[in-house]
Amino acid sequence: MSEQKALQNVRQEIDALDEKIQTLINARTALAHQVAEIKQQQADQSDFYRPEREAMILRRVMERNTGPLPDKEMARLFREIMSACLAAEKPLSIAYLGPEGSFTQSAALKHFGGSAELLPVSTIANVFSAVETEHACYGVVPVENSTEGMVSHTLDRFISSSLKINGEVSLRIHHYLLGKGENLSDVKTVYAHPQALAQCRQWLGDQLPQAALIPLDSNAEAARRVSTMDETAAAIAASNAAEIYNLTVLANNIEDEAGNTTRFLVIGRQDVGPSGADKTALLVSTKNKPGALQKLLQPLAENQISMSRIESRPSRKGIWEYVFFIDIEGHSQDSAVADALAKLESESSMFRVLGAYPKAVL
Amino acid sequence: MSEQKALQNVRQEIDALDEKIQTLINARTALAHQVAEIKQQQADQSDFYRPEREAMILRRVMERNTGPLPDKEMARLFREIMSACLAAEKPLSIAYLGPEGSFTQSAALKHFGGSAELLPVSTIANVFSAVETEHACYGVVPVENSTEGMVSHTLDRFISSSLKINGEVSLRIHHYLLGKGENLSDVKTVYAHPQALAQCRQWLGDQLPQAALIPLDSNAEAARRVSTMDETAAAIAASNAAEIYNLTVLANNIEDEAGNTTRFLVIGRQDVGPSGADKTALLVSTKNKPGALQKLLQPLAENQISMSRIESRPSRKGIWEYVFFIDIEGHSQDSAVADALAKLESESSMFRVLGAYPKAVL
Repeated sequence: MSEQKALQNVRQEIDALDEKIQTLINARTALAHQVAEIKQQQADQSDFYRPEREAMILRRVMERNTGPLPDKEMARLFREIMSACLAAEKPLSIAYLGPEGSFTQSAALKHFGGSAELLPVSTIANVFSAVETEHACYGVVPVENSTEGMVSHTLDRFISSSLKINGEVSLRIHHYLLGKGENLSDVKTVYAHPQALAQCRQWLGDQLPQAALIPLDSNAEAARRVSTMDETAAAIAASNAAEIYNLTVLANNIEDEAGNTTRFLVIGRQDVGPSGADKTALLVSTKNKPGALQKLLQPLAENQISMSRIESRPSRKGIWEYVFFIDIEGHSQDSAVADALAKLESESSMFRVLGAYPKAVL
Repeated sequence: MSEQKALQNVRQEIDALDEKIQTLINARTALAHQVAEIKQQQADQSDFYRPEREAMILRRVMERNTGPLPDKEMARLFREIMSACLAAEKPLSIAYLGPEGSFTQSAALKHFGGSAELLPVSTIANVFSAVETEHACYGVVPVENSTEGMVSHTLDRFISSSLKINGEVSLRIHHYLLGKGENLSDVKTVYAHPQALAQCRQWLGDQLPQAALIPLDSNAEAARRVSTMDETAAAIAASNAAEIYNLTVLANNIEDEAGNTTRFLVIGRQDVGPSGADKTALLVSTKNKPGALQKLLQPLAENQISMSRIESRPSRKGIWEYVFFIDIEGHSQDSAVADALAKLESESSMFRVLGAYPKAVL
């Protein structure tokens, strides 16, 4: 059989498969419609989207995947299939910190898929308002960058809002080697924030073993400085620095591991049930006396609950009172967690569960 | 049967369907691997991605679609499935005009799907270089905005490059009503470019029938002006203007039709075969004498070939010589087109087919 003929045969098989896949996706859309109809007879009509069920489906897709398509790619396809099925029923409107093209838009797309209706909003406060006033079903806001720390606007807004955290999204921000020249081989000196240098150590060792590595206060400062130098200088920075300082991308995605990530929160008006792998976010305040925080956190340790993050913010009520944002592993409805939270609450001057939500799957 | 039980049954059916879909997608990935293996035995090993075959598959998906999932949504899912299958074989690297988050990135994602490896590059010239030097398989550059006209950098670069146009992408840019207040009902005056006012006429008539409509030079100028006024003023602009001028989005996607689009070109090193619904882009130069252009274009009219666009640019060779970028309907290998192009070539002082490529499907 000639190669051309062989190719034609395989392509016919692909076409036949495509037709079957299409039929099944349409059947799935029809079933999603049945789900919506049943729910419409129930009291809570806004509950079309169930974050915990989506997370469970995606995890199952990854667990049972035998390949050859990689697990994450398969989960990404199912995220899109679910997004399309849901939109055929009732398009989800998602307010996000704009403008269009922002990283928060990418996060909203990653979480809700390409079929959601995305509404850019100009401030974090306006994302909250859009969801509070039911202009949007959900909102997406940045909350934490691995190199820049917490986004305080977002945390502060939770103090006055009754919205719940319904999910989280992690977005990897890539490192680029930027320079004035055209060739990597011209580079003799690399400038960057020490953390960026550390995150790219292996790549730098392989590709530029002779280069001097100069730590600076920020990657943006490194890019700015390199823009005033010759082609032997290069900076590690985000891709938008290339645009701002008119530098060339000498190499991309040079980080050794997923070091540089930005974390986003999905906010909504309802609580989310347990998915089997969840986090709970707490807002807690305590009196400012020695040992108060240690005492406050004791119930978590006693119940073997890991705390993945704690962040203090000044409360707006009193000069010396602080509030703490605490992320713990598990769902607030899990019995061990519920037990610890009850004790924690009794020790706090203020206590609120900001939300319990599925851990990011993708 | 209780509603809860009914819901559970439908969800079990969905889970069973998902498992079948997953099995078929993995089978498709295996077949794509066979295609790659057959191609590896052929001479041209870089030819994994075939734009014309992708376009044909997507059109067939839309034609045979019976719903309930809408045709475009179904095609979007197949774009993602093909993207994932291709990446499992050999990830396509795509250079685009960055930074990350630019509209060109959205265009690259729309055309190549979420599994392609996207490389932001700081200038249009660098997108061309990245493809010419084989740092990237393909490039994506903006070429035309419906309100701002052609992107001259891109056209000029084709004069000196041997790259081919392999595809086109249209991206809809939405209009937003931006203001200082919170409520649409406060708005008494709307500022915008006349074209934007025209594109939103129906929406304005329905929602703000009493408002005065004031034309200005640009939507950006309208947003700037509104930022200095009170809550009775509003501007029609793109969402990033809200960020820049600290305005609130009072309403989104207010355009009556898809008026405001940006068009992008996919550039590559190879020619693309006919897909059945194609365009051909030409670069033509003629002597600057009266009637020369009319005479040049006559073969197109005689062969009933529609010209969808013509744009003149000064050539860099002589002061009075112009080059023309001409888009025609059909593929340069179609017999009527080939016939007309042969005649057109004989009348030109310079003639090049910049590329024949499938019309945008999505």
